Parts: sequence; structure tokens; C-alpha cells
Amino acid sequence: MSFNYVKQAGKFLCIGRNYLAHIKELNNAKPSEPFFFLKPRSSVLLPKQGPVLVPQGTIVHHEVELACVIGKTLKNLDPTSFTPKDALEALSGYALAIDMSARNVQDEMKKKGLPWTIPKGFDTFMPLSAFITKEQITDPYNVELNLTVNGETRQKDLTNLMIFSLHRILTTMSSIMTIEEGDVVLTGTPKGVGPIVAGDKIEAWASVDGKIIPESILELD
Amino acid sequence: MSFNYVKQAGKFLCIGRNYLAHIKELNNAKPSEPFFFLKPRSSVLLPKQGPVLVPQGTIVHHEVELACVIGKTLKNLDPTSFTPKDALEALSGYALAIDMSARNVQDEMKKKGLPWTIPKGFDTFMPLSAFITKEQITDPYNVELNLTVNGETRQKDLTNLMIFSLHRILTTMSSIMTIEEGDVVLTGTPKGVGPIVAGDKIEAWASVDGKIIPESILELD
Ligand SMILES: [Mg+2]
Ligand SMILES: [Mg+2]
Ligand SMILES: [Mg+2]
Repeated sequence: MSFNYVKQAGKFLCIGRNYLAHIKELNNAKPSEPFFFLKPRSSVLLPKQGPVLVPQGTIVHHEVELACVIGKTLKNLDPTSFTPKDALEALSGYALAIDMSARNVQDEMKKKGLPWTIPKGFDTFMPLSAFITKEQITDPYNVELNLTVNGETRQKDLTNLMIFSLHRILTTMSSIMTIEEGDVVLTGTPKGVGPIVAGDKIEAWASVDGKIIPESILELD
Repeated sequence: MSFNYVKQAGKFLCIGRNYLAHIKELNNAKPSEPFFFLKPRSSVLLPKQGPVLVPQGTIVHHEVELACVIGKTLKNLDPTSFTPKDALEALSGYALAIDMSARNVQDEMKKKGLPWTIPKGFDTFMPLSAFITKEQITDPYNVELNLTVNGETRQKDLTNLMIFSLHRILTTMSSIMTIEEGDVVLTGTPKGVGPIVAGDKIEAWASVDGKIIPESILELD
């Protein structure tokens, strides 16, 4: 199990609202193009580093997501010449991530038109799995994302439900900021997000065609 | 002139709305406590790396700001025992920064309740000066921030107009995320923000008691 990719990441970029049923469950508007936000390195939580913290006064939601590790510099990609195949070739691999979100704080920020950095950026708010190779995930749209809380299934959906493909995500991002080798891109969460409380046992994993990827397993409590 | 601090920075944190006259010029609400956002490393623009880019369809505003370089880990600071003097001692030095902002995109994001990452995060959107020592800035509240466009004064105000002190900023930030040695904190912009267009000559500098700090000088065109 290797976590070197975490050290090498320059930035952690997260796509919002990329699964329709998740957009509906939070009564959000469907975006016409991908938008994204940054999570700080200080929010990374690696296995055995302890539990996810629930800061006082916050309602913390889990969002299980497929993370892509970028393999080369991507800058001002031309969507006509940069193909969906090129997008997959631009990745060095994958990981499983949980984009923990202080939902009540985020709702307040949204109402006030303020940045999402605080609700998305608390310490421990980005549990990350070990590195997953492209041999283990040959098709990033055929990955089942799973998350349970105290043994109860909360999230379980295929990545083929993504609204914006990796090709579209990387094209849009690269038109705004240079994506660098090592950067990590979280691709959005399927439906089923919900609150956790201190002491909850959270388990998450990715599977392909019914087989769990051992490197993807996250166990937090 | 040293720029090593830029390489060593883990994250770039920016305070919003920290000068009253700037809040008023944009018709924003005064915050009751500090809020902040992240800029990516890919937005850094060092001297002689070229001009600030004005992406198609955007209205780009300059925001000159005093940046603080953090000298030690700050985590869950207790505002009763962490003193204003401790705050200054927690810094290793300073820099001058311009927080370039795609204002029309930011206005749209605010209206929609979306993150500020895109309007704040374009490549070249964070010009940074050389490192400024604590001997050169003995009092961070007695620094005049200056910015001219094509020789015309646009921003010129003292940092003593800050609403939230460094003590307050660091206390709040540290209650959300661990501030690490090397992190860079931009402390907000005074009034006078306004648009730039491609080809504009932008000059910015900091002065103390009428004397320009040579390390602070930014010349962009
Ligand atoms: Mg998410
Ligand atoms: Mg943000
Ligand atoms: Mg600013």
C-alpha cells in the first residue's frame, strides 16, 4: 500500500455536484459546467491517523468520491484535440477519498455568497486511501463507490452516473489553472450523503465488477 | 532578494473583507468574524515571469495586500492565552501580494452560492514580492500599501485600517485548519480595487514611514 502520491500532490481539487441524485437530495441547482474548490493538505487524514473530527456546532456529512491522480501537466487543454482517451492517459492512478463537509456551515456560506474553504477545509476532512493503479481501475466509469456508517449502507453507486466526464472536468479546470503532475482531483459524490457523529464507524471502499479493491479500503472510527 | 519562502509555502490563505472602505466600495456585508479562501500555488506569479493574464470574458481587479509568512505550527489557538505579541512572534516575515480577482465571475459565484476558487485561482492571479524581514516591518499595522496602474494611484492605505488583527485572523484560521510553518496568509485589501486590462503597467510596493521597502516592489506589465 503506497501513500507517496499524497506527499507529491501540489493541490487537491474537488468537483461539486457531479451526480444528479445527489444534486436533488440537497435541493441544489444542476451546474451547466463543472465548478470546483480546493481542499488544503492540512485536511488530509491517512489511515491510522485517528477519527474524523466533528467540530463543535457543525453537522458533518460524508461524501465518498473517486479521486484521480494527475500524471502530467495540463494547461489550457483544447477540448477538440484533447480526447476522452487522452484524459485517462493523463492520469497516473486513482484513490478513494471522502470529501467531508460541514453542511450547516456550507449552507450559511452559500446563503451569504462566501467561499467554501471553511466548511470543506477542517483538519481530518479528507480521508484518503492508498494509491490504486490503472491496472486495478481500467475504466473509471465502472467503479462502485461504497460508504457505510456503523455497518449501515449510506452510499453505493457506480461512477458511470457522473454528469461531467474526466475529459470535461480536466478541460474546464485546465482552462482556469494549470493542473500539475501529482495534483489530486476528487470527482464528486453520488447520492446518500448524511451526517456522522463522533464515535461513528465509517467504512468506505471501491469495487469493480463486484470485487473490492483492497487499496481503496478506508476504516475510520 | 529571496523567493525561497514561496517554494516552502504549503498553502496560501486569503482573508476577505478586512478593510471597511473596501467592503463599502463593493457593497458587501461586513463580516462578524474573519472568513478566508485558498489560492493555488499555480496562481503564483513571480517577478519576470510575465504579465498578469486577463482571461477572456473576465473583469480582473487588483487587490494589493500584506502577506504574512508563518514561522511555526498554529493549531486550535486559545484566544485568551495566545496574545497579539504571540501572533507577531509566530510570523517569520512578510511579503507584498496582489490578490487578483475575476470580479464578474466572483459576483456570479456569490449570487449562486458557489465557491470562489475559480474567480480567485486563475494562473498569474497571485503576484508575490521577495521576502521582507521582521526588521524591515517591525509593526505590520504601520505599512502603507500602494498600487498604481499606468502611473495612476489606485490603492494607497495604511494597514492600521485592518478590521481583524493578525491575532484574530490566526486564532480563527487555526480553529479550522492547522496553519503550518511556511504557509502564507494574505490579510485583505484596502479600498481602490479596480479593473486592469492586458498591457496595463501595474506597480505595487509597501512603505514604512514614507520609506519604500525595496523587496516589496512589484512591477508587472
Ligand atoms: Mg464533494
Ligand atoms: Mg473556495
Ligand atoms: Mg483579497
